[in-house]
Amino acid sequence: MEIDLPDVLAEVTEQFARYEKALVSNDVTVLDELFCDDPRTLRYGIGENLYGFSAITAFRAARSPVGLNRKTAKTVITTYGRDTAVASTLFYRETLPGRVGRQMQTWIRFPKGFRIVAAHVSIIDEPGSPKDMDQKT
Amino acid sequence: MEIDLPDVLAEVTEQFARYEKALVSNDVTVLDELFCDDPRTLRYGIGENLYGFSAITAFRAARSPVGLNRKTAKTVITTYGRDTAVASTLFYRETLPGRVGRQMQTWIRFPKGFRIVAAHVSIIDEPGSPKDMDQKT
Repeated sequence: MEIDLPDVLAEVTEQFARYEKALVSNDVTVLDELFCDDPRTLRYGIGENLYGFSAITAFRAARSPVGLNRKTAKTVITTYGRDTAVASTLFYRETLPGRVGRQMQTWIRFPKGFRIVAAHVSIIDEPGSPKDMDQKT
Repeated sequence: MEIDLPDVLAEVTEQFARYEKALVSNDVTVLDELFCDDPRTLRYGIGENLYGFSAITAFRAARSPVGLNRKTAKTVITTYGRDTAVASTLFYRETLPGRVGRQMQTWIRFPKGFRIVAAHVSIIDEPGSPKDMDQKT
């Protein structure tokens, strides 16, 4: 199992960048393209659990395009062999002060290219923030 | 890319069950065994973001063993080829009424066996619950 082969890492990094650009511009065509069209594809979102590609595309189609802009931080992409990668990133939105988002995706290579087969997005209080400290006391 | 080869699925399902048993009994030795011992291993937890195996084992060692019991639901394990799997499950705790946990793990086969290279755990209001509805209005 070779980790982070440069050409594989470059390929996934490019797709990850396409996904991020599509997300903040609500380019639903690209978002749908990058998720694997399969009933086993799974997406745990910020407030919903979506089982299967159809549920994910229906969610995208119905989503408001307002407020999707964000800044990413601490992005980590790691590839395993030639056909698997995990892409993880933190993200921040101006509308969510003191909170941090976490997005993790598993990408698998299919004949069409790398596709997301599983994703999990969540938002928590920024660890170490005053709000987080309040909750612990 | 063959999905859900029966013998691979059985192997990952067994490891996933070991992980769950170790989690609720706070068997730190097994939990540490099942995460990949690598600085690239990543775990987004319920309230913390842990980068690298050392950070994850330090968190386990310091964690209170109280209140870890939970019931899982809608567990989905999908394997891709012989060396990759994603295991996802919802979970519920008696101490968190109206809330649902989501746990997603990516497993990779190494010479020692399948190990978790990335995990993301989060808790949200149960979609469709009165609490969730309150937040939307």
